Amino acid sequence: MEETIPNWLTKRAHLTPDRIALKFKGEEYSFQCVYDQSLKIARQLKGLHLKEGDFVGVLLKNHADTVFILFGLQLLGVKTILLNNRLTADELVYQLKDSKAKCLIYEQSFDFVVKNINKQILADLMTISKEALFGLEEQEVNAKEEFCLENVCTVMYTSGTTGRPKGVLQTYGNHWWSAIGSMLNLGLREGDCWLLSVPFFHISGFSILIRGVIYGITVVLHESFDEKAANDAIIHDRVTIMSVVSTMLVKMVDHLKDQSYPAYFRCMLLGGGPAPRTLLETCAKKQIPVFQTYGMTETASQIVTLAPEYSLSKLGSAGKPLFLAQLKIKTVTGNEAAPYETGEIVVKGPNVTKGYLNKMNETKEKIQAGWLYTGDIGYLDHEGFLFVLDRRSDLIISGGENIYPAEIESVLLGHAKVDDAGVIGVDDVKWGQIPVGFVVLKSNANVNENDLLEYCQKKLAKYKVPKKIIFLQQLPRNASRKLLRRKLRDYYR
Amino acid sequence: MEETIPNWLTKRAHLTPDRIALKFKGEEYSFQCVYDQSLKIARQLKGLHLKEGDFVGVLLKNHADTVFILFGLQLLGVKTILLNNRLTADELVYQLKDSKAKCLIYEQSFDFVVKNINKQILADLMTISKEALFGLEEQEVNAKEEFCLENVCTVMYTSGTTGRPKGVLQTYGNHWWSAIGSMLNLGLREGDCWLLSVPFFHISGFSILIRGVIYGITVVLHESFDEKAANDAIIHDRVTIMSVVSTMLVKMVDHLKDQSYPAYFRCMLLGGGPAPRTLLETCAKKQIPVFQTYGMTETASQIVTLAPEYSLSKLGSAGKPLFLAQLKIKTVTGNEAAPYETGEIVVKGPNVTKGYLNKMNETKEKIQAGWLYTGDIGYLDHEGFLFVLDRRSDLIISGGENIYPAEIESVLLGHAKVDDAGVIGVDDVKWGQIPVGFVVLKSNANVNENDLLEYCQKKLAKYKVPKKIIFLQQLPRNASRKLLRRKLRDYYR
Repeated sequence: MEETIPNWLTKRAHLTPDRIALKFKGEEYSFQCVYDQSLKIARQLKGLHLKEGDFVGVLLKNHADTVFILFGLQLLGVKTILLNNRLTADELVYQLKDSKAKCLIYEQSFDFVVKNINKQILADLMTISKEALFGLEEQEVNAKEEFCLENVCTVMYTSGTTGRPKGVLQTYGNHWWSAIGSMLNLGLREGDCWLLSVPFFHISGFSILIRGVIYGITVVLHESFDEKAANDAIIHDRVTIMSVVSTMLVKMVDHLKDQSYPAYFRCMLLGGGPAPRTLLETCAKKQIPVFQTYGMTETASQIVTLAPEYSLSKLGSAGKPLFLAQLKIKTVTGNEAAPYETGEIVVKGPNVTKGYLNKMNETKEKIQAGWLYTGDIGYLDHEGFLFVLDRRSDLIISGGENIYPAEIESVLLGHAKVDDAGVIGVDDVKWGQIPVGFVVLKSNANVNENDLLEYCQKKLAKYKVPKKIIFLQQLPRNASRKLLRRKLRDYYR
Repeated sequence: MEETIPNWLTKRAHLTPDRIALKFKGEEYSFQCVYDQSLKIARQLKGLHLKEGDFVGVLLKNHADTVFILFGLQLLGVKTILLNNRLTADELVYQLKDSKAKCLIYEQSFDFVVKNINKQILADLMTISKEALFGLEEQEVNAKEEFCLENVCTVMYTSGTTGRPKGVLQTYGNHWWSAIGSMLNLGLREGDCWLLSVPFFHISGFSILIRGVIYGITVVLHESFDEKAANDAIIHDRVTIMSVVSTMLVKMVDHLKDQSYPAYFRCMLLGGGPAPRTLLETCAKKQIPVFQTYGMTETASQIVTLAPEYSLSKLGSAGKPLFLAQLKIKTVTGNEAAPYETGEIVVKGPNVTKGYLNKMNETKEKIQAGWLYTGDIGYLDHEGFLFVLDRRSDLIISGGENIYPAEIESVLLGHAKVDDAGVIGVDDVKWGQIPVGFVVLKSNANVNENDLLEYCQKKLAKYKVPKKIIFLQQLPRNASRKLLRRKLRDYYR
């Protein structure tokens, strides 16, 4: 097996230069054009003296420019840290420091947050707005003609059940195999066109970009999700595939009213956690071809997807592991579960991350003998279809964003007047779930809910800030002091 | 990059057990059924005490049983030597001895040739008819759950320009990447169905079998090529893709008369050497979607194929190297050729063989730094499209001018009374070599040598016009209908 593949963008531009690669705000860009623009930016980036293998953070919105910058970085062999646009300055500092990033490329509109980045902590960090980057002179570059599949392409941070966010290493091989595995399941048609309205800084968004180039299909890029714009793109712009999470799909179905999608629309790829049965049934009635899928940052997007012929008969299942993937359910005793027996979902495949950046221990704990212990709970039916019951027991998924209770708890615990803190997700009609905090104050402390919420707003991206704080005398913990979030959920009900 | 993938048949049977894998003589076999049958044969083969890594020769016809035997051998991790059904006993002995085969599985109908195999030379060789194999008791096996991509799956012997046949090593990775590369070019649709009417013992046939399992599509298997049966399969049996060589396509088009193919028929994959321009033009008129392709045993099928949008504008080109493949033209001085400059076609990619079985020197000579020197002649146009002129061994050099037999053949085939044509170079005192034509006339055609020479003179530069035309009842072609110019040379002598 070869360890290198041709640079996917260079190869694609050579194979089908004139096909439309990207549509954004009414503009169309051919693969040749995307390549030319990306090479131009690689030449401009060269002036920043980046070396192959350096880490570069990008704080960029969904925009054609971002596509060119991301591919430009690949042409230089630079590793890209995709920063969530909603992070606070403190959160950004943590990720940039943890990854030892040489440079941060950002949009001018994020000036306010970049200004607050602590320059003392990040003495070596170069910061440059994309607008300034585009003004740099072009220099000679040795553009990468091949990618080594073992090399890191991107890093995306996720928080675990405990502690600080960890940088998930995504290699060129991870992205490549993910695209191939998806294609073997969903097929590939001439004229396919994928709507990208989720953020680039999530694997769901970035993976569409890579698939587009590998498949040679058009990506329709939206700045952000809007149900009317999404429905318009499907109905009027010949979009054939779209990636969504439940909250997006609910809005689209509502907006659609009595209309239906054209026959060429062939796949609504639904990820981001278990979908409400009512939504799936509504879609079945409206003949919207929903493909439930299960994946995560660590698997470079989908690892389990429901094959077309089972989309109705196995409603609610995430499907079977993709062609190159393997999956087991492990019970608490470490044995392989019997059909219908619940346990931890454990996966293996060439799309699975090699580990976390500079986190040897966490990597060893989560990845054993090539198997990733996802922390998610589910079971297999008698035919081997996966049903995901719960994400990491405590993971909160709010409007498609992953929120880790431990991260919010650690912020609350950092407050001088807080003695103990717990966070759970509670159901919400609009967002799917929202975080709610439980706090035990130190004796004689006089803070109220608003004080704590204001405090959180300074430390946490807005979507992570609890929507409510409930004060308790004591939190339910087991003998080894582990927080029993299940009991908090019972209490909340 | 992982070095293993799941066993493709096991995985496919798990993913889509009920889809139709195979149609043969009116019978349909699901993927589950193919798996069950193959496992049964693996259990029966176990009684022959084959070890993983052993070589086993198969002398089998296109038949459902052959599919089960081939996959059964893979379940055991045994390496399969696919023996050409037309070989003489002497030729079989050579290949079985060269590969140190432990066992030969053959059809009872080949009894006569197997009886003539020299048992003294092959003292250790076990021979068993498939009919006897199917009577063996089943034994417990440890079926292979994963394939190591580096491991050899199959061996096919090819004759080079000189000397004895060489065993081309085809790894699981070669077959896997070949299937993926083809899919990235041709796409993959629900309902795709590939007609297999070329022999399994040629890579063109075997590769369809592997693609079928990886893609999860139906393979319609014919015992041998017949233009009426092939047209029927396309028109009545929902075949969407078919692999052909020129002579097959000529017959199909003739038989088709004024009929046309249904819209779902989307790809006539045309390999096996340069195609006559008249044939391509006829197909264009009839709206038959011809995809010219270039490949060989050493590249596990296609390595260059014409993308859909260029099938007409680049008529006659074999296309561009597939997504994972690279290609160069090397001039006689060893430099990379300029556009339109003729030279040797040199290719690289994960579908390219690691070498020839037990032939270190030949391997080193043909494969240098990962690049395979094909011995074939061609050029790239200014956009990087490959035009294959001829196989190097067939090149005729006359008075310092290069003459490509295929070019003359295509002219002869353009004559209304000519059914088949072949051209070779024969030694000549004055010119070094001169071209000689061999022609099969259509029944009741009344043309003579002079008529044909006059026709050629109108179409070809003088030095390319055959110095002689010899009329035959039939041209020597191998089982995949490839012209055997070597035999014409023998005949001429």
